[in-house]
Amino acid sequence: MSTLSIATAKEVFDLLRDDLAAIEREFAEQSASPVSVITEIAQYLIAGGGKRIRPLLLLLSAKALGCESESRIKLGAVVEMLHTATLVHDDIIDEADTRRGRPSSNTTWGNSKCVLAGDWLYMQAFHTALEERNFRVLDLLISLTQQMVEGELLQMQKLGHLINEEEYFDLIYRKTACLFKVSMQLGAAITHASDETDSQLGEYGRNLGLAFQIIDDVLDLTASEDVLGKPVASDLREGKATLAVIHALERGTGADREAIRKVLADRSFENVSHPQILEILNRHGSIDYAMDTACAYAEAARLSIADLPETEAKRALLWVPGFVTSRDR
Amino acid sequence: MSTLSIATAKEVFDLLRDDLAAIEREFAEQSASPVSVITEIAQYLIAGGGKRIRPLLLLLSAKALGCESESRIKLGAVVEMLHTATLVHDDIIDEADTRRGRPSSNTTWGNSKCVLAGDWLYMQAFHTALEERNFRVLDLLISLTQQMVEGELLQMQKLGHLINEEEYFDLIYRKTACLFKVSMQLGAAITHASDETDSQLGEYGRNLGLAFQIIDDVLDLTASEDVLGKPVASDLREGKATLAVIHALERGTGADREAIRKVLADRSFENVSHPQILEILNRHGSIDYAMDTACAYAEAARLSIADLPETEAKRALLWVPGFVTSRDR
Repeated sequence: MSTLSIATAKEVFDLLRDDLAAIEREFAEQSASPVSVITEIAQYLIAGGGKRIRPLLLLLSAKALGCESESRIKLGAVVEMLHTATLVHDDIIDEADTRRGRPSSNTTWGNSKCVLAGDWLYMQAFHTALEERNFRVLDLLISLTQQMVEGELLQMQKLGHLINEEEYFDLIYRKTACLFKVSMQLGAAITHASDETDSQLGEYGRNLGLAFQIIDDVLDLTASEDVLGKPVASDLREGKATLAVIHALERGTGADREAIRKVLADRSFENVSHPQILEILNRHGSIDYAMDTACAYAEAARLSIADLPETEAKRALLWVPGFVTSRDR
Repeated sequence: MSTLSIATAKEVFDLLRDDLAAIEREFAEQSASPVSVITEIAQYLIAGGGKRIRPLLLLLSAKALGCESESRIKLGAVVEMLHTATLVHDDIIDEADTRRGRPSSNTTWGNSKCVLAGDWLYMQAFHTALEERNFRVLDLLISLTQQMVEGELLQMQKLGHLINEEEYFDLIYRKTACLFKVSMQLGAAITHASDETDSQLGEYGRNLGLAFQIIDDVLDLTASEDVLGKPVASDLREGKATLAVIHALERGTGADREAIRKVLADRSFENVSHPQILEILNRHGSIDYAMDTACAYAEAARLSIADLPETEAKRALLWVPGFVTSRDR
């Protein structure tokens, strides 16, 4: 694929600046509840930032199909709100202390309020989506949410255990790629695009989401706490085996396997250190393997949208996968 | 109102037997998830029973308007599923040990899985409702769920504090009456009834729901643990002031007020005993006051549907309020 067709970060930002600002306003507006503690928690989460990559995908998908309607702003806020709702409940489940370098909401408000705040954010997202009066939009969002919730439960069941690549890909599809896919498909839904276009955009989102999560999981293993804004190797410490670890498990010596198995079962580096694990991963080329896999999905994402008409939005969509695979946090 | 127009329990049961059995089957079917732990939790909750009063209201509302479509079965299961979802999350929040005389789901499966199981039940309810392809149905359900979640948060903020009657009625509306109202309105929504009929049925549900919850709160104070299937006076022990208690607070001596305030603040009968509180409530006629108020709402429910055509379903709806106010559990 020619790099000539790929935009730059500045071009993408210029293209979406106004829309992203409108989504921030919409998101803030939608988070206002008659119950003050909900508004407090929601605004804390908004202020925490986040990459806003899901709304960005929705905007580019809609733009690539020529949509300029207000729906793209509303639904951009909806996908970010759904994402935020899942984070609130996930932080309770993972007993997380921090999120994006700040105390997690459950640390500040307690589990009980956060269960309800998460519920409320889900409902508010559906409430806004319902105003679109588009059944396809609702089908996508409800089915997505169920898949994400099921994924989180599957994840819990597998904590501390060795899993294979197939299980890993199912988990990261549900955790991340599914929402990326739906964000893209919502662009198709509000422009009433053909099934073929819907499917191409969906494939783009799925491939990109898989790349995104593989990179996230690699960074968790290799980045420093300063850069990441959370403790390193928290996946291993929560008993989660990710792609590089699975690769090393399948290729490692008996001692390597045992070291990894120990960390996952202990959920700590008490008996085997973090550097020891990194040494095993590097010796088997497992980090490179995970990076290469992410890059292959990123390329697959670009190929998924080859048939789209040549627009600025398409150029931006061709840029996103490279941005996702080259990030350091 | 003439008692001649009021049905008997047997008549109501005969009228709804097949539909209620169909709802049980539908509810069980809807609770099947590809993730086994969700199905386990859901089936545990179904087996726990419950009065199924919300589906019963929906069936009677639909029948009173001549509806015989499958929608009444689907949505009957939906309202019970939404109710169940709220119970799962409430049990986490209240740190409940038992529910309907059995260990609560959080005791058996832990909070984390129950947060997600509750999320899943919400989504499954919406998923089924969405199949109706009726925006009014979705508007009612989403707005309902938000009001219930907000109510639970308001409840948390008021725990341990003295509240007035207005606050109490807002809380029990959100906790119970709102879902009773929507159950009735869903009958109107699937028969595309007039706004006037929708509003009369909604009023019936609201009044009945208020009566139901006031009785529930009285039983919590006065019934025995054997009959109730849960510890007595658990509201006071959770710091919740209910109608009879609010009545006594407004009429009691300084010492009475102080005794009640102490129990609410302590969230235990360590310093003031349960019999002492009952003596205060009885001395001020507070239990009778709460019962009379419930009966007045029950009568208001009957009056709300005076304009409905005379049908078996209407006769049954006229019977329900008396059943609700005379129950002992």
